[in-house]
Amino acid sequence: MTVSREVELEGHIIDSGMMQSCFGIIMDLGGSFSVQEFDIGRHKDEESYARMLVEADDEDQLQSIVHELHQHGVNPSDPKDATLVPAPDDQVVPHGFYSTTNHPTYIRHDGEWVEVEDMEMDCAVVVEDSDSPRAYTKVLNAIEEGDLVVTDETGIKVQPPERPRDSSGAFGFMQGGVSSERPSESTIRKIANAIEETKKEGGKVMAVCGPALIHSGAREDLARLVREGYVDMLSAGNGFAVHDIERDIYGTSLGMDTESLDHPRHGHKHHIYTISEVIREGGIEEAVESGTIESGVMYECIDNDRPFVLAGSIRDDGPLPDTITDAVEAQNAIREQAHEADMVLMLSTLLHSVAVGNCLPSTTRVVCVDINPATVTQLLDRGSAQAVGMVTDIGTFVPILAEQLLSED
Amino acid sequence: MTVSREVELEGHIIDSGMMQSCFGIIMDLGGSFSVQEFDIGRHKDEESYARMLVEADDEDQLQSIVHELHQHGVNPSDPKDATLVPAPDDQVVPHGFYSTTNHPTYIRHDGEWVEVEDMEMDCAVVVEDSDSPRAYTKVLNAIEEGDLVVTDETGIKVQPPERPRDSSGAFGFMQGGVSSERPSESTIRKIANAIEETKKEGGKVMAVCGPALIHSGAREDLARLVREGYVDMLSAGNGFAVHDIERDIYGTSLGMDTESLDHPRHGHKHHIYTISEVIREGGIEEAVESGTIESGVMYECIDNDRPFVLAGSIRDDGPLPDTITDAVEAQNAIREQAHEADMVLMLSTLLHSVAVGNCLPSTTRVVCVDINPATVTQLLDRGSAQAVGMVTDIGTFVPILAEQLLSED
Amino acid sequence: MTVSREVELEGHIIDSGMMQSCFGIIMDLGGSFSVQEFDIGRHKDEESYARMLVEADDEDQLQSIVHELHQHGVNPSDPKDATLVPAPDDQVVPHGFYSTTNHPTYIRHDGEWVEVEDMEMDCAVVVEDSDSPRAYTKVLNAIEEGDLVVTDETGIKVQPPERPRDSSGAFGFMQGGVSSERPSESTIRKIANAIEETKKEGGKVMAVCGPALIHSGAREDLARLVREGYVDMLSAGNGFAVHDIERDIYGTSLGMDTESLDHPRHGHKHHIYTISEVIREGGIEEAVESGTIESGVMYECIDNDRPFVLAGSIRDDGPLPDTITDAVEAQNAIREQAHEADMVLMLSTLLHSVAVGNCLPSTTRVVCVDINPATVTQLLDRGSAQAVGMVTDIGTFVPILAEQLLSED
Amino acid sequence: MTVSREVELEGHIIDSGMMQSCFGIIMDLGGSFSVQEFDIGRHKDEESYARMLVEADDEDQLQSIVHELHQHGVNPSDPKDATLVPAPDDQVVPHGFYSTTNHPTYIRHDGEWVEVEDMEMDCAVVVEDSDSPRAYTKVLNAIEEGDLVVTDETGIKVQPPERPRDSSGAFGFMQGGVSSERPSESTIRKIANAIEETKKEGGKVMAVCGPALIHSGAREDLARLVREGYVDMLSAGNGFAVHDIERDIYGTSLGMDTESLDHPRHGHKHHIYTISEVIREGGIEEAVESGTIESGVMYECIDNDRPFVLAGSIRDDGPLPDTITDAVEAQNAIREQAHEADMVLMLSTLLHSVAVGNCLPSTTRVVCVDINPATVTQLLDRGSAQAVGMVTDIGTFVPILAEQLLSED
Repeated sequence: MTVSREVELEGHIIDSGMMQSCFGIIMDLGGSFSVQEFDIGRHKDEESYARMLVEADDEDQLQSIVHELHQHGVNPSDPKDATLVPAPDDQVVPHGFYSTTNHPTYIRHDGEWVEVEDMEMDCAVVVEDSDSPRAYTKVLNAIEEGDLVVTDETGIKVQPPERPRDSSGAFGFMQGGVSSERPSESTIRKIANAIEETKKEGGKVMAVCGPALIHSGAREDLARLVREGYVDMLSAGNGFAVHDIERDIYGTSLGMDTESLDHPRHGHKHHIYTISEVIREGGIEEAVESGTIESGVMYECIDNDRPFVLAGSIRDDGPLPDTITDAVEAQNAIREQAHEADMVLMLSTLLHSVAVGNCLPSTTRVVCVDINPATVTQLLDRGSAQAVGMVTDIGTFVPILAEQLLSED
Repeated sequence: MTVSREVELEGHIIDSGMMQSCFGIIMDLGGSFSVQEFDIGRHKDEESYARMLVEADDEDQLQSIVHELHQHGVNPSDPKDATLVPAPDDQVVPHGFYSTTNHPTYIRHDGEWVEVEDMEMDCAVVVEDSDSPRAYTKVLNAIEEGDLVVTDETGIKVQPPERPRDSSGAFGFMQGGVSSERPSESTIRKIANAIEETKKEGGKVMAVCGPALIHSGAREDLARLVREGYVDMLSAGNGFAVHDIERDIYGTSLGMDTESLDHPRHGHKHHIYTISEVIREGGIEEAVESGTIESGVMYECIDNDRPFVLAGSIRDDGPLPDTITDAVEAQNAIREQAHEADMVLMLSTLLHSVAVGNCLPSTTRVVCVDINPATVTQLLDRGSAQAVGMVTDIGTFVPILAEQLLSED
Repeated sequence: MTVSREVELEGHIIDSGMMQSCFGIIMDLGGSFSVQEFDIGRHKDEESYARMLVEADDEDQLQSIVHELHQHGVNPSDPKDATLVPAPDDQVVPHGFYSTTNHPTYIRHDGEWVEVEDMEMDCAVVVEDSDSPRAYTKVLNAIEEGDLVVTDETGIKVQPPERPRDSSGAFGFMQGGVSSERPSESTIRKIANAIEETKKEGGKVMAVCGPALIHSGAREDLARLVREGYVDMLSAGNGFAVHDIERDIYGTSLGMDTESLDHPRHGHKHHIYTISEVIREGGIEEAVESGTIESGVMYECIDNDRPFVLAGSIRDDGPLPDTITDAVEAQNAIREQAHEADMVLMLSTLLHSVAVGNCLPSTTRVVCVDINPATVTQLLDRGSAQAVGMVTDIGTFVPILAEQLLSED
Repeated sequence: MTVSREVELEGHIIDSGMMQSCFGIIMDLGGSFSVQEFDIGRHKDEESYARMLVEADDEDQLQSIVHELHQHGVNPSDPKDATLVPAPDDQVVPHGFYSTTNHPTYIRHDGEWVEVEDMEMDCAVVVEDSDSPRAYTKVLNAIEEGDLVVTDETGIKVQPPERPRDSSGAFGFMQGGVSSERPSESTIRKIANAIEETKKEGGKVMAVCGPALIHSGAREDLARLVREGYVDMLSAGNGFAVHDIERDIYGTSLGMDTESLDHPRHGHKHHIYTISEVIREGGIEEAVESGTIESGVMYECIDNDRPFVLAGSIRDDGPLPDTITDAVEAQNAIREQAHEADMVLMLSTLLHSVAVGNCLPSTTRVVCVDINPATVTQLLDRGSAQAVGMVTDIGTFVPILAEQLLSED
């Protein structure tokens, strides 16, 4: 005896690979299927439709197949309302809670599909039951006793974004995966265009920055991009800010003069002295106001009111007074920025890029730049619909990008 | 008109490279020198002695030369007491405070040399003035108003450890730098010997672990090493513990069955479910006691009373109740462990290894294992006297190490 | 006015992704299509069938679409004979010659489909016209005046191998791509099974070896695998053989004792002395016979009649008398081995693995092991249907593999 | 009973590390020493002098110590003539032949020191005995029967170049080792200066180029550098030339349009078509003359008479008629270029850079650029006195370098 459920697929289901994934999932999980209706888009613009009966040996197996299917956008043809169970305690989710993907998601409540707000992956979905019900994600540690948490698999619809077919637009190149075998200058030109297009659409650009950006001499050009409004907000670590400010106060980065390449012998102390100076002032903003800090990325953020998050880590010296040392608090600050961003530039940092990437829906544009191909691969592996990775030297990338953006004004 | 100061060098000053460094520093910084007395060790066991007059154009230049020299173990022949200045406020050091190296260091106080306790780099030195004066390091954020902080360059003696000449002992191979071109099994055998020797001396072994250790299937063997007492304490991140416990509860790591290599299609949810289960229980110890967790690295730590530190980071899911999310608190916990360790195994984690490395004096033995040569190079670059790096697969390293250690019992 | 052609797809055309690729190609190249017949496999075992009309703006565009389609296994529904043009000169192909993929390929000649022999990519196809016509690949430099070379796109059928659905067999894991996040010992166990299965089927295993295999201490275990018949033939460079023989004669590799890790100070001369000794003897076989070489990989090859190819390169010292210094001759020797191999182990060499990979049809099993993830990715990127990459240390991989294979006998 | 020999050290023997190496060697090899005379340079400009008695347990040990010492520039105080033994056969050196370092070397013959010509490492030294005797290196495969080959250790003087103390000149930065943490644009500016300085001195600049240079879009700028005379000669592989010419004929590299980043679907055939076209013409020069090739690096080499060597390898398609497929012949051609070069730019190729590096004396300036830090490390590890490595993207490096060099004219 087998159990079965009917599911539907709609859209460019062949072209997008959805149908292939669907067949694969069913077979991988040991189920079987029969196609009951199949209406193929006869031209390239037409959508297709398929209705299938999924069969499994028992209810458990069927559930796990249907669970996988719906994560790939295949939904039951007879949707029911989502199951809501109150959280038994703060930070404790009900058993069998639904853990999110990063794709646009809808919850069926009182027979209506409600879009889930603030989509990001590995969260619970909480529904506010009212006349106009809302659904939104919550990370586990934010769950409060009594929150109505979506559990099980029913009443949930996931819509993985289709990768745009047309590669001719400003963002068309952003599906190219990672390659160190692409022409560097042309790729940077494309990225510059995508940033301009995003700004023209009124979008916000977020830069996620690692300290290598400073060591490699790209600080001044990033500062210009912040000043000129091509970077709307910034996420980095304590070290990034310290290196940026060290360059301002002492002219060095990691103790090396970034112009002359000289390495003043006592330069390795500049790092810790810089921290000490900023602590003495009370913070970066205070140090800018007092004139202690007169240039650089952090300076331009303060001077032009670009919000920044400095997240602490266990390898920090200091930390600076501005650094959020609690990881959960820092995540919340990053999350807020990430949800506002329309395009994210991940510049030479794995830790902070992963943290930001964790909070992004799959619809946000992502550019990821690092000299380590493994880092770029790992960051692009998160299923964004428009993402491009570039294996290059951040110390030449930022200057060329800035030249592209600033000389075209 | 020039200024000058007399300095002394003692020990195996040619063999250790000290004399060469010293000449280099003086010339690099634009000074000059004349050798006033030079008594070379005529045989390989004899120590040498040199007395030199260092000359510079002005007092600033002289100070900076003497500063560099003393960081390499060259000390003024006419030592004065260290200068102590009270900290003006909490977390605020006096101007010109002395920032430490990770080498054994002595402070001259009331004409006596006092050894600085808890040596680690980039700290201030605080002196407790009393009948039996003490000196110890303090990180910047731990400074309290009124602390007597060592400033300037006088009255400080640094003793970089000499690398042992004799390479025949158990630790003799631990000066080999990084290489992926060394025979793997022989190197692991040497590391096993060094661990045994450390245990025989009554020393403590600390393991610093990244999640790759679990993914790569080395979990069971590390657990055995913890159980059998070859690992006395453990430092890791939230992710390591979650992956370890996921393997226990669901048989997967990152959703992959580590035995069959099957990838149960809903396995990617195991990670977040694991966190949820441990939160529900209240913590790892509670989950062990209740029987929810029955095996693995964390289980053995609990079961055998091996202390562990789980430090949070902004890329964590969860986090687990045991994870210290505040970076400063986590550093303090790591610091305490690091100061107790006689040998540190850095296993496939850059972030946590740097954090631990920051707290280690240069006399602690360090073994660093990673598949990325850049990580190993970066970690070995901290000036430990006995350190070895190995570019290998942690998933084969730990099993072979465990076999060496456990079959020899 | 548009031009059009009818094409057919057969098999697991959705499950295998063929249909998706096909739609993508047409749209990427600016064409359009209408599906004229679509018969979907209603159960997982049934094959599907589709007939489509491909439309384009002009004949050029249509040709290029049809060209791409047929490289993905989509064939015209009205096949014509292939066009044959005689080569105008030695090493000179006719304009518009057909350049091969590495997939099984058929040429239509006199109304019959003839399978192309010795498939490999980037070759011309030469047809021998006779009562029983043959078709085979020729590399450009082997073309002789008058060879009948297939040109244009008609009359050619390509069949990309389907990736096996069922992952439960001995080779089921060999579609896993590259990952450094898989359990190492379990993966090696799977590879051992696949080797055994290949041998049971009467297949031949070819090892492609880089010098790192020797430096990392895996020499003895590879030698055992050669002796015991798990490696049937070997492809390597001059350096590999020299390092292997140096270990035999001097006990060192790159001048380091692979047991004690000691580095005899004059050890760096062993390399060049080894070459000199073998030249003096006249070759490896002579040196084995005279007793100069008494153990190791090359010794076992000679002693057990396992054919080997040593290909020269511009970085060689020496070279040994056995080394084929001409690249074209060496390629021919490698090609002959590659065409005989049923399974290829690529062990820590990019250069030789690429050379071998260039000669392999897409149906040969490939295992690629390297500590550099970029190397593994590059090697797996060649479209073999059964290939697996492992990022690990060759110095632990070979010993564990040998233990698996040799202890199970 | 011990044996002993007296040796002398002269020059900046402490500052250069020579004395330290010398003590280390003796102790590592189990010998002992007593310093008999030591005259230290009392100021930074004065040279030092030391005379030591080296003692060992037997003549073998003593020889091996003295052998090592003299490779580091320590020479016996009582030099004898070098021992010359005729080669017994073609390609066969006498037993115990002296294998060279890459440092300037002198052979004592008839009581006179004769400088060895064409220094490179791992060669034999052949002496032409006549009124004005000459000594020069020969690789093993070039040895002819009867050649007088230097054997044993006596009568040989090696002078490792001292690294220049003064870092202020045009080449002062070229001792910086490898770092990805240096400011990129400033470093490129320094390299540009060093190239200009080399040209001003009448020196020759050799470029060693990998295909990544073309894929990454740097082709046009390298072509300009060739045209304008900043590159005097070029060493590359078959693939580099093919990719360069593909870009000219088809506008693609690896099938990708390097301007638009479009990937024409049939573009992957361009590579093999390009080879076919050049074979048809008879060679690159013929294809330039006929107008088939109209631009690019190879075009500029032909057009401006810059000699080039294209060395074949087993992974080549084709090869082109210009490619030297025999590794030994190719080495000889590379060797000739390398001996003429005053500065070598190694641009994104490990294989060809190692081949060139093998032929360079330690006095040639070397700049090594690659995106893979392991490649840069390996290439810099050859003991050149003036070498700098840069971990960067060749696709941005060459354009910025060209801008520096060409805009300053």
